[in-house]
Amino acid sequence: MTLPVDPAENLAALIRCPSVTPAEGGALGVLENMLKPMGFSIERPVFSEAGTPDIENLYARRSGNGPHLMFAGHTDVVPPGDEALWKHPPFSAAIEDGIMYGRGAVDMKGGIACFVAAVARHLEKHGSLAGSISFLITGDEEGPAINGTVKLLEWAKQRGESWDASIVGEPTNPTTLGEMIKIGRRGSLSGTITVHGIQGHVAYPQRADNPVRGMMCLLESLLDPAFDHGTENFQASNLEVTTIDVGNRATNVIPARATAGFNIRFNDTWTAESLKAEICARLERAAQANRLRPGRDTAIQYDLVWNERPSHVFLTRDDRLIGTLTRSIEAVTGRRPELSTSGGTSDARFIKDYCPVVEFGLAGQTMHMVDERVPLAELEDLTQIYERFIADFLA
Amino acid sequence: MTLPVDPAENLAALIRCPSVTPAEGGALGVLENMLKPMGFSIERPVFSEAGTPDIENLYARRSGNGPHLMFAGHTDVVPPGDEALWKHPPFSAAIEDGIMYGRGAVDMKGGIACFVAAVARHLEKHGSLAGSISFLITGDEEGPAINGTVKLLEWAKQRGESWDASIVGEPTNPTTLGEMIKIGRRGSLSGTITVHGIQGHVAYPQRADNPVRGMMCLLESLLDPAFDHGTENFQASNLEVTTIDVGNRATNVIPARATAGFNIRFNDTWTAESLKAEICARLERAAQANRLRPGRDTAIQYDLVWNERPSHVFLTRDDRLIGTLTRSIEAVTGRRPELSTSGGTSDARFIKDYCPVVEFGLAGQTMHMVDERVPLAELEDLTQIYERFIADFLA
Ligand SMILES: [Zn+2]
Ligand SMILES: [Zn+2]
Repeated sequence: MTLPVDPAENLAALIRCPSVTPAEGGALGVLENMLKPMGFSIERPVFSEAGTPDIENLYARRSGNGPHLMFAGHTDVVPPGDEALWKHPPFSAAIEDGIMYGRGAVDMKGGIACFVAAVARHLEKHGSLAGSISFLITGDEEGPAINGTVKLLEWAKQRGESWDASIVGEPTNPTTLGEMIKIGRRGSLSGTITVHGIQGHVAYPQRADNPVRGMMCLLESLLDPAFDHGTENFQASNLEVTTIDVGNRATNVIPARATAGFNIRFNDTWTAESLKAEICARLERAAQANRLRPGRDTAIQYDLVWNERPSHVFLTRDDRLIGTLTRSIEAVTGRRPELSTSGGTSDARFIKDYCPVVEFGLAGQTMHMVDERVPLAELEDLTQIYERFIADFLA
Repeated sequence: MTLPVDPAENLAALIRCPSVTPAEGGALGVLENMLKPMGFSIERPVFSEAGTPDIENLYARRSGNGPHLMFAGHTDVVPPGDEALWKHPPFSAAIEDGIMYGRGAVDMKGGIACFVAAVARHLEKHGSLAGSISFLITGDEEGPAINGTVKLLEWAKQRGESWDASIVGEPTNPTTLGEMIKIGRRGSLSGTITVHGIQGHVAYPQRADNPVRGMMCLLESLLDPAFDHGTENFQASNLEVTTIDVGNRATNVIPARATAGFNIRFNDTWTAESLKAEICARLERAAQANRLRPGRDTAIQYDLVWNERPSHVFLTRDDRLIGTLTRSIEAVTGRRPELSTSGGTSDARFIKDYCPVVEFGLAGQTMHMVDERVPLAELEDLTQIYERFIADFLA
């Protein structure tokens, strides 16, 4: 029996499954068929929650004597959009000039295809693993992420699983393979502010209270001064006002209400709790200071709702995990990867509660775009990196 | 033949015509029937314009040897809203405890009813007028005001009409009859600002350009410092931001665009042109100064559209007109009216190009509200004020 040692073949099989979240699309089945001949025991738990679609997931493990390494990822993909805009059909895995096209090519069926190939090559050479390897694969990363990694981790833990390290195969390199490992993430916190004014005619501003004035005072207090200037491992925390809405179409009316949404990506200067306290303090000072509201002696009337559970900031400090991966990358690509904590959130933020976790995958330029694609040479290089890493880390 | 000497009867007949803009509702016909027995020659020009409803208007004149006084106003009314909320049906002119209820009671069928009664009483006493009186009445003041006073004035001028003075019967008193004459109005200017940013993910703000930051810089430049601190006859100019809209519901996305609307009521420190220039200069300075946009070396990208033809500021300085009206008010109410330029625009802003114009009518608290109403005693007092004014001004 031949093992799935060719990452391009693995990836083509995965791309051909139209697994747009929440559809499984056959992708987990394809993956199961690759892993089974390599001696993995495979489970396909389905998770449900009211108001969200049921989601299929996969957990596969091959045990050995030694450390337990978990490879984590997702087979679901974002929609292709207008398929007519694609050079090749998005689920065809067409190859042109040594480049494979398809939705999920880099985010992140490609990462899965390479890791599978790396394990297959290791087994072909050595016949066994010096430790345990598991695949923790969800079909709900690009969607609400409610029936995916969070529940899968808890489900596995309940069954007695534990891990020594995890590598998430998301595309981490900005442009070229080997540039960047992600070793942590900033936290994320979102809120909605509503300012309550008093509606009235623009000709009689003294009888009204324009909530836009109050909103501008509150938002300015969040934008200036900066929350911090970055730390050893992290960029500066940054707040963006994502929307302001009033919806008043009458040019002679002062509106009654204004709302604004904001999101802050924060570093390890803060916990979610200390940052919330800082934001509340800034808003309260601005509400009392009452700038831009001539003649008012009342504070700005507002309320603040935190939108969702925050993502907590984290930093992985496992020298063996990071060092082994760095050396594997250097050996294959000649590049010394930057250890980064930049960018958006990923499922690593959940895994970090179970074991040290880093992220390393393909180059991400075309992720979520039309003509998402990956050079076959890059698939081969990533496979070699993963193969070296497996050999060294489990040794 | 009895003349329409009772303002309450006149008003009841007008209220019973449901003349919600643009409907004539019978109101101009009722008015015509009051004026005809008093010797007025009456015209009912209808004005049209593509995209707007046809509007009926009325011009009536009774000529005499002496000054020509124009009474100006409108018979159209704003919608009653939910009629179930009214104590009495809004077009019934019900009287309870000496108070008449109905849409238009104060804005401004009441003013018309009183002026008609004043002329009727004068004619009953004297048999003739020492000068000319005309009624310039539109059915399009509360609507787009395109087929109303502006066209009616030009139409009358084309026919050789000219006036020595005009009194507009809008409700000018904040709470009590006799408090306030309006002798001018601030100008009004509205604009829409659009800031063009670059959409992106909140985790990568350096790749995006949040237009909310730019918008806040631009708007702050319009709110602070004040444009002026008022003049001898006028309040300070005041700018209100009437809306800000982004419409972005994704908390992890930096939006591409933000729009805001503003209106400024300005005094005689400015012309519409000099004020536009000042606003453009403030925006341009703020766009270049680039506050709240860390790391950007480009100016804020924005455009500004002036929403409509501005209303120009004006001040009536006719001592005889203002003095005669003030003395009439004092004689009847014992109050010395404030000469005000506060509040919103009215058709006086068009009439001022033809002759000196002041505004004086009922107390306006209930205008545009549910249970719009007027005490019968106030109708009688206003009638007496108008009657004295006619006698003295035409003498
Ligand atoms: Zn992904
Ligand atoms: Zn009116």
